[in-house]
Amino acid sequence: LDSVAMEAAQARLDSLTKPPGSLGKLETVAKQAAGITGEAMPDLSRKAVVVMAGDHGVCEEGVSAFPPEVTPQMVLNFLNGGAAVNVLARQAGADVVCVDVGVNAKLEHPKLVSRKIRYGTANIAREAAMSRAEATAAVRVGYEIVSEMVAKGTRVFATGEMGIGNTTPSAAILIALGGLSPEQAVGRGTGIDDARLRHKRGVIERALQANEVDQDDALDVLAKLGGLEIAGLVGVILGAAAHRALVVIDGFISSAAALVASRMAPLSVSYMIASHMSLEQGHHGMLEAIGLSPMIHMDMRLGEGTGAVLSFHFLDAASNIMREMATFESAGVTQG
Amino acid sequence: LDSVAMEAAQARLDSLTKPPGSLGKLETVAKQAAGITGEAMPDLSRKAVVVMAGDHGVCEEGVSAFPPEVTPQMVLNFLNGGAAVNVLARQAGADVVCVDVGVNAKLEHPKLVSRKIRYGTANIAREAAMSRAEATAAVRVGYEIVSEMVAKGTRVFATGEMGIGNTTPSAAILIALGGLSPEQAVGRGTGIDDARLRHKRGVIERALQANEVDQDDALDVLAKLGGLEIAGLVGVILGAAAHRALVVIDGFISSAAALVASRMAPLSVSYMIASHMSLEQGHHGMLEAIGLSPMIHMDMRLGEGTGAVLSFHFLDAASNIMREMATFESAGVTQG
Repeated sequence: LDSVAMEAAQARLDSLTKPPGSLGKLETVAKQAAGITGEAMPDLSRKAVVVMAGDHGVCEEGVSAFPPEVTPQMVLNFLNGGAAVNVLARQAGADVVCVDVGVNAKLEHPKLVSRKIRYGTANIAREAAMSRAEATAAVRVGYEIVSEMVAKGTRVFATGEMGIGNTTPSAAILIALGGLSPEQAVGRGTGIDDARLRHKRGVIERALQANEVDQDDALDVLAKLGGLEIAGLVGVILGAAAHRALVVIDGFISSAAALVASRMAPLSVSYMIASHMSLEQGHHGMLEAIGLSPMIHMDMRLGEGTGAVLSFHFLDAASNIMREMATFESAGVTQG
Repeated sequence: LDSVAMEAAQARLDSLTKPPGSLGKLETVAKQAAGITGEAMPDLSRKAVVVMAGDHGVCEEGVSAFPPEVTPQMVLNFLNGGAAVNVLARQAGADVVCVDVGVNAKLEHPKLVSRKIRYGTANIAREAAMSRAEATAAVRVGYEIVSEMVAKGTRVFATGEMGIGNTTPSAAILIALGGLSPEQAVGRGTGIDDARLRHKRGVIERALQANEVDQDDALDVLAKLGGLEIAGLVGVILGAAAHRALVVIDGFISSAAALVASRMAPLSVSYMIASHMSLEQGHHGMLEAIGLSPMIHMDMRLGEGTGAVLSFHFLDAASNIMREMATFESAGVTQG
């Protein structure tokens, strides 16, 4: 991060008519944005959420409350503007970019970014989700999309995803990389009952036995435990960091991608902003493992990027505070 | 609350393309807004923050990091649009109404709502902040202002305040009504050091000894421990509840007003929405005493209504979700 720009941002923040630091994370984010972009008051208006979609072979074990055909159905919903993330992105003035990186269906739509690596992952309860080459290719998809968007002016990204069953690979990654127990890491996803939750934990334990992952090799963990949309988001995060853009991390699945990215490139964490604390029970431990602290506590558990897009408002707020607030001097207010 | 409107809102929420309840507090707020207004999809676009300003005699004990002349200086800053709350209100499309209910200075400005009850409170470390009649009059100021604004179309209010020293009466109220200890309730306000914090606790203990409050009489507590802007906000909250408007509660001082209102009229809590968890240490216990759970965790501690105005975005989001999201039927998505 650019320490000169951060010092300039801090000096500006301390000149404004408020006790030093009293706007909390609005100030932290303003300073972080300066460090990332190298500008004391960067223009953060060009924002986008990248929604990566992929399917999961492990769904055949019955780990989700929804059937797998919902993945392509929801992709079409994103493309037609009817999903929650579309509504919130419109409100935030952000673009929605929907990417098929691994949906288990043929999908065609003029707005779809078709970068399918394979038709869903293999069942991790029995074998590796994908090959190391496929994982690398999926990461590259995210990286390249962000590179193109940065070239066209986008400076703030949110991570979004769709993939029925994807809390299962996310929890498996959390156990492998974050060292949590299955009891801590595995939650109810879109809403399964107690019996199905016990079953899901068993499936994840089988996945960790079937796949001998090297926990010091995050790409190995990613390839063996999946999924393709998580790999795509790892690329989004690494691409944002490489191009000095901000990347706002959504909920549990996005944070699994952030955890992988943080192990592949520890400096990438400085480019991340945690948006919300999901109701999914492993999310708290996941964010702690990355070293992030979320801004929104609304018991959301939808994914898609909804929490990340909601917190775009705070980035705009930080930007407006920097530009529009009076200083102690200009307003004639006594400093404490 | 209107249970028919709430059921209609719930049915709508459950028809949208997302797992039931997965948008968390966005859904809770949508349903609460229906219950308050009696409309399944109310128009929440007309919003305002009412900033009540008053001074505190207890400042002569040296409890704040800022001198008392900052209160009128900041009121002028609000009126000229340069404070943090102005910036955030512009972003939210909300009006800022600034009310002098007890500033210890003559203030004139074309935009100021001048409803001064007295020039600051008395020093609570020695005597009652104000008489019971003055407290009632200050409550009436808030109630009347909200009544007039509702008549002109405002349906969502945020509580805001300015008054150097006002974490001191707020903590005293929390101890008296919420049963917390001074160690739990008294915090650093705008930023005092350890020695001053110990001193502030001692001042508040003296205030509780000097004023024998009847903890079953919230108006008695309000009058004896103060302040005038807190009393004004009690009126804002009660006025919103009486007129079926939503009222978003800001941080520690606003929550002290909400705590008083909740004891004077327990049903008023149904009309409140907690915005953020302040860094001020007593705020958590204060919200628990009222029965509220905040949405934003950003370590803010500025007051003015800044946290409440920031969370207006979530009310708009809830409203947009209700209006714009596709249903399972319209989007052809399989229900779980």
